[in-house]
Amino acid sequence: MGSTYNRVTPEVVNALKDIVGKGSVFTDEEKLEAYSHDETDAEEYGHAPEVVVLPGSTDEVARVVKLANKELIPITPRGAGSGLSGGAIPEQGGIVVSLEKMNRLLELDKANMVAVVEAGIVTNDLANTVQAEGLFFAGYPMSLQTCVIGGNIAENAGGGKAVKYGVTGRYIIGLELVTPQGDVVQLGGKLVKDVSGYDLKSLVIGSEGTLGIVTKAIVKLIGYPATKSDLLVLFKTPKEAIDVVPVILSQGLTPTSIEFMDQLSCSTSCKYLNESLPYEHAGAMLLIELDGTNAAQIEMDLIETGKLCQKHGAIEVYVAEDKNNIERIWSVRRNIAEAWKVFSPVQSLEDIVVPISRIPEMIPELERLGKKYNVQIPCYGHAGDGNLHATLVKEPSMSMPDWKKNEVACLEELYKITSGFGGKISGEHGIGIKRRSYLKQVIDPVELKLMQAIKKAWDPHNIMNPGKIFA
Amino acid sequence: MGSTYNRVTPEVVNALKDIVGKGSVFTDEEKLEAYSHDETDAEEYGHAPEVVVLPGSTDEVARVVKLANKELIPITPRGAGSGLSGGAIPEQGGIVVSLEKMNRLLELDKANMVAVVEAGIVTNDLANTVQAEGLFFAGYPMSLQTCVIGGNIAENAGGGKAVKYGVTGRYIIGLELVTPQGDVVQLGGKLVKDVSGYDLKSLVIGSEGTLGIVTKAIVKLIGYPATKSDLLVLFKTPKEAIDVVPVILSQGLTPTSIEFMDQLSCSTSCKYLNESLPYEHAGAMLLIELDGTNAAQIEMDLIETGKLCQKHGAIEVYVAEDKNNIERIWSVRRNIAEAWKVFSPVQSLEDIVVPISRIPEMIPELERLGKKYNVQIPCYGHAGDGNLHATLVKEPSMSMPDWKKNEVACLEELYKITSGFGGKISGEHGIGIKRRSYLKQVIDPVELKLMQAIKKAWDPHNIMNPGKIFA
Repeated sequence: MGSTYNRVTPEVVNALKDIVGKGSVFTDEEKLEAYSHDETDAEEYGHAPEVVVLPGSTDEVARVVKLANKELIPITPRGAGSGLSGGAIPEQGGIVVSLEKMNRLLELDKANMVAVVEAGIVTNDLANTVQAEGLFFAGYPMSLQTCVIGGNIAENAGGGKAVKYGVTGRYIIGLELVTPQGDVVQLGGKLVKDVSGYDLKSLVIGSEGTLGIVTKAIVKLIGYPATKSDLLVLFKTPKEAIDVVPVILSQGLTPTSIEFMDQLSCSTSCKYLNESLPYEHAGAMLLIELDGTNAAQIEMDLIETGKLCQKHGAIEVYVAEDKNNIERIWSVRRNIAEAWKVFSPVQSLEDIVVPISRIPEMIPELERLGKKYNVQIPCYGHAGDGNLHATLVKEPSMSMPDWKKNEVACLEELYKITSGFGGKISGEHGIGIKRRSYLKQVIDPVELKLMQAIKKAWDPHNIMNPGKIFA
Repeated sequence: MGSTYNRVTPEVVNALKDIVGKGSVFTDEEKLEAYSHDETDAEEYGHAPEVVVLPGSTDEVARVVKLANKELIPITPRGAGSGLSGGAIPEQGGIVVSLEKMNRLLELDKANMVAVVEAGIVTNDLANTVQAEGLFFAGYPMSLQTCVIGGNIAENAGGGKAVKYGVTGRYIIGLELVTPQGDVVQLGGKLVKDVSGYDLKSLVIGSEGTLGIVTKAIVKLIGYPATKSDLLVLFKTPKEAIDVVPVILSQGLTPTSIEFMDQLSCSTSCKYLNESLPYEHAGAMLLIELDGTNAAQIEMDLIETGKLCQKHGAIEVYVAEDKNNIERIWSVRRNIAEAWKVFSPVQSLEDIVVPISRIPEMIPELERLGKKYNVQIPCYGHAGDGNLHATLVKEPSMSMPDWKKNEVACLEELYKITSGFGGKISGEHGIGIKRRSYLKQVIDPVELKLMQAIKKAWDPHNIMNPGKIFA
């Protein structure tokens, strides 16, 4: 899907200033640098835009896109820049359209239990605001507190609560989209059901900004679960921990989360946090959360879950009873990625997803790959979803050229194994720039052709976030 | 999207026999007649195919489609023919591809809690088989017991349990699709999360067979809810009944169903069933079902729901305690459509959907429209979803030309009102032939253009179920 683009001329910059106002157009180097990367490795993937614009309204976004489409200038939509696959990186230069000024909660419609928001709203702000009203945005990913809903939609973000609640997309019942040709369209609505034509809303969710810029969203809320309770379960080996996951789920129990940490992940995070947990010695652990409206029910389910774990090889089952303890353990889980960055900043954070029944088979494969390619592969993640953050970490002693070579070879093999298990190479971070060449290796060419046909039909000039997903 | 098609020649019939076998190709008039209609009015919408084929495998389907695409012959995929919008009617003649022979449960994967099925499996058979294993297909629509999963997917069928469980699409995590060009592709998988490229699976769900033929599905199952309990709540007027729906839902209670019947619907169904309920005199009623794993919890929620109803204007609240009573009431609800057919076979069964908060405003509009156009509009349906079967029924005394004129004018006005409330013209039956000219009147032209661009990109010869959705 190659394209030839035009450069951003001073005339284009002036036209952009006419649209969004002088104070919302940036061309100074420092500003451009700040918009040149996301949370993937800046050195490897970063690229500066030619200009950054901060529109304040959908109409302004539409006019910017119309201009870019006419002038054949690539556009990169940007939320908080907290993505993990390079989706917000302006690889081709051109215009970055940052939604940061469009961050309002437009309507909290309690009768329909929905919030209408601009795409740039910080997801954490949305979650806190609705929680104060007893409502719950269950699609909130376990992400940085800076992420915005537009980015969550672009990636169809997952996270820690998806076992029970599903991912972001389930809660997005309507979207306002500026198409690659600069038209504005409302998709979906405040509706539970809708079969009036194709489900374009679901197509846009997870399309990584390649099919247009999402400017607004209608977010479905549910009642805030009053009660929450956690279990920490220790196992001798990762395999034993992982084996118990399908056992729990097939009993009809629906925990909010079943998070998995191997010893390496846990101890690295503990060291980083200067935390000392009595259970660091365990080979692997599961952190299981249940929530609901009825404390007695949660208690019963918790006990049943604990018993199942014990019956299936757990060494110990801890009920995290006080809030402080719960938070300590979750903090260890949440900080694994950061901790590994400190240990070795050179790494590849992965998010493969496999059928739940296949994750036990994945563990020995990861151990084998780590040895074969001389990389550490700590494994943690959303075991209840089959979504594992098997992260390749460079040994500090390895040279960069060796690392790069080994990383590529190891990822290729990892992705092939994942595909062989009926899995996919990304469960929640997206393809972006980082995984596009690998996607090509594992995806059915027919599926790829069908995707590209849509991209071409909607964006014939390929100006909307070019180079993402498709290599 | 006009196209010129070729006729089915004897050579084509022979080629089809070579693919699916002689015994699975029909050209005799009686057989063609049987495949010329669905559950919409046969006289108005029916049209015979030139040939019917019953493939036995995905490979046979693919070869039939390749042939049709090459010969420019339209294809109409068919499930059980129980649709309500004409989706399975071969309006342009050509080939009907009936999936009836592909009706196997291929795999019941209990570890991943999924079933892999061929598209022609009777949904009721699937539901019963998995229930015997303690599992639940929560996306089962409240439909005829003859409907098949392929049809449910084509229409993204809704039904009575969607308040709590959502519609069919939520439970379809993977699909096998034969594209309009005859390629076979697997979309999705036994996965909870997947952001490896566009979500083509969700695009295909609800596309009414216009984007290809679904040959297999991976169906997500959940634990079978052990307990179920029902409330029947009587109100003086439809408005009072409907008003209480958002009140219940915004309390965080999640009934499985909140079904609504006005007096006209209830008494007509009672008469038809020769049933006598003590509550026929009520102006309107809600039938509320709760389910779950814990009987005590259900009991508590049921009581709370009843109290809310009483506080908000209910005349009486009955707890349907024995199974026989529950079944009697549900039978009245389920038989409304049939009962009205007996009263007056000429009718237009509608399934408009509006935001839940707007349904109280819909009731007086329906009354006004009924008077204005001299049609009866009994109203019943899935109030908890905002999905109302406001059915236009011809007065037996009205002439057919008058009815037709009034029906069209009344539907146009009804759909415009629905759109004005932020609603859509079909919540679960689809657009098909029946609503395509109306869709054109209410849909945003940009949205329509985006849909048609996909259709054209995937099916350049427009051979796959032409004339459905798009006028």
